[in-house]
Amino acid sequence: MISKNKIKMIRLLGTRKYRLQYGLFIAEGDKIVLDFMRAGEWKIEYLFAKKEWIGKLSPEERKHAGELHEISYEELKKVSFLKTPHNVLALIKLPEYKPPASPDPAGLSLALDNIQDPGNLGTIMRIADWFSIGTIFCSEGSVDAFNPKVVQASMGSVIHTRVYYTALNKLIRNSRNQGIPVYGTFLEGFPVFEKTLTDCGLVVFGNESRGISQSLAGLIDEKITVPSFPPGSTSLNSLNLSAATAIVCAEFRRQARKE
Amino acid sequence: MISKNKIKMIRLLGTRKYRLQYGLFIAEGDKIVLDFMRAGEWKIEYLFAKKEWIGKLSPEERKHAGELHEISYEELKKVSFLKTPHNVLALIKLPEYKPPASPDPAGLSLALDNIQDPGNLGTIMRIADWFSIGTIFCSEGSVDAFNPKVVQASMGSVIHTRVYYTALNKLIRNSRNQGIPVYGTFLEGFPVFEKTLTDCGLVVFGNESRGISQSLAGLIDEKITVPSFPPGSTSLNSLNLSAATAIVCAEFRRQARKE
Repeated sequence: MISKNKIKMIRLLGTRKYRLQYGLFIAEGDKIVLDFMRAGEWKIEYLFAKKEWIGKLSPEERKHAGELHEISYEELKKVSFLKTPHNVLALIKLPEYKPPASPDPAGLSLALDNIQDPGNLGTIMRIADWFSIGTIFCSEGSVDAFNPKVVQASMGSVIHTRVYYTALNKLIRNSRNQGIPVYGTFLEGFPVFEKTLTDCGLVVFGNESRGISQSLAGLIDEKITVPSFPPGSTSLNSLNLSAATAIVCAEFRRQARKE
Repeated sequence: MISKNKIKMIRLLGTRKYRLQYGLFIAEGDKIVLDFMRAGEWKIEYLFAKKEWIGKLSPEERKHAGELHEISYEELKKVSFLKTPHNVLALIKLPEYKPPASPDPAGLSLALDNIQDPGNLGTIMRIADWFSIGTIFCSEGSVDAFNPKVVQASMGSVIHTRVYYTALNKLIRNSRNQGIPVYGTFLEGFPVFEKTLTDCGLVVFGNESRGISQSLAGLIDEKITVPSFPPGSTSLNSLNLSAATAIVCAEFRRQARKE
C-alpha cells in the first residue's frame, strides 16, 4: 500500500525544487535500483516494489533497502515516471556535491554548456562512464542530473559519474591558470581526428541548438570539430549532441590507448 | 480551419498501418518541412500552418506546399505529436522504397537488427547523413522510419537517407556472396580502433538490449567492439546504441580520410 501523501511526494520529486526540498530523487527499474543498493555510498530512504521483487532480496540487500513498501503494479503505474513501469521505484538521498574550483589535472573531464535534453545528459553520462571520465561539469542553467528522465537514460551511470553545477567561465579560467588544456567542440574547428589530443584536460560541449555560448568560446584555445565525410563536404544537418560527444570522447581515448 | 476528418486522419498517421493505408506520413517543424519542400523529390499533400508562416512562403515554395490550410496554434496543438508544436505540420506522400538484394559494393551501409527506439533510429539517420552513408537496412520488426518520432529525431536526415526494411540474413548472405565485407558490433569483439577497416561494406548493429540476434551473429565474420577505457577495463554499463553507432561510423570514416 502507498499512502496519498507518498504518491503526492513522488510526483513532486519530478521537479528540481522539490528534490532539493525533500533531499530525495527517484530511481526506477530492477537493475538501476539494485546497482544503487549495491554501490554502498547511496542511501535508499524508501523503496516501493512488488511483493515478488521484495521476496527475492538477500538479507544483506534488505539492509540497504530503506523503508520497504509492498505495492501493486496498479499503484506503481500511478507514481511511475515511465510509460511502462518496472517492478520497483526507489527514493534515494540526494547527494550534496560541492564542485571543485578546477578539473582534475590528471584526468579527462567534460563541461556541458547549457545542456537541456534529459536523454542527452543521461546518454553522455553513459559515454563518460564507458571511457572512465568520472567528472562532468554543467553550467547552472543545464538540465538536472537527478531529473528522473536523466537518471533513467543514464542506466545507472549516475552512480559512477559526478555531475557538478558551476559557472563554466570560472572553471575554464581556473583550468587555464593551472595549465590544464581546454578543448571545445565547434561546427568550425580543427578536425578532431587530425589533432594530437592530450590524455588529460577539459572538453567543453555546447547547447543542443546554439552550441557553446559566445562568452565561453573566447576562453577556449583548442577548437575541435567532428568532420563530416567526405572531407570538406557540408551536411544540411548536424550531429546530435550525444553522438558528437561519443565520437570526441572515443577519439581522446583511442589516442591515449596508442601510447 | 481544420476539419474533424483531417484531425482524425492525422492522429491515425501515428501508426504504421494507417500510414500505409493513406500513403502519407507526418513532418513537423519549420526547418524540416521547408527542407522537404525544397528537396524536390517529396510530394507534400497537405500543409497545415499558421497564417504568418504561410505568408512567408515564396511563390516557388507555395507550388510545392500541396493543399494549404491555415490553422491556429490551438488547432495545431490538437493534432501535433510534439509537446510544444511549431508553426507547421505537413502530410507527405510516403515513398515506396524497394530494398535492393545487396548493399552498394562501392559504399558503406548500415544494418539495424530489430532497432526499437524511435529516437535511436532518428539519431542514427543523422549520423549516417553526416558521414555520407546513404543506406540503412532494418530488419522487418524494427521501428518504422516514418514514425513521427523518428522523422522528428532525424531532423530532416530522413530526406537524404534511405531506410529499407528487409530480411537481414538474406542481405548478409548476398553481401558475402559478392565479397562485400560484413562487420558486426558485439560486446565481445575486436577493438574497432585496432582493426584495419575497409572503406566499403555493411556494418550490422543489434537491438538496444539484446544486441545482434544469434541467427545473424553466425553469419558475421568481422566482429568488432567499442572498447571501454582504460584498455581491458569492464564497465557495469554499456554504451547507448546510437552512441556506439556514432563511434563506429566515425572510426570507419577516420580511417578512410587517412588514405
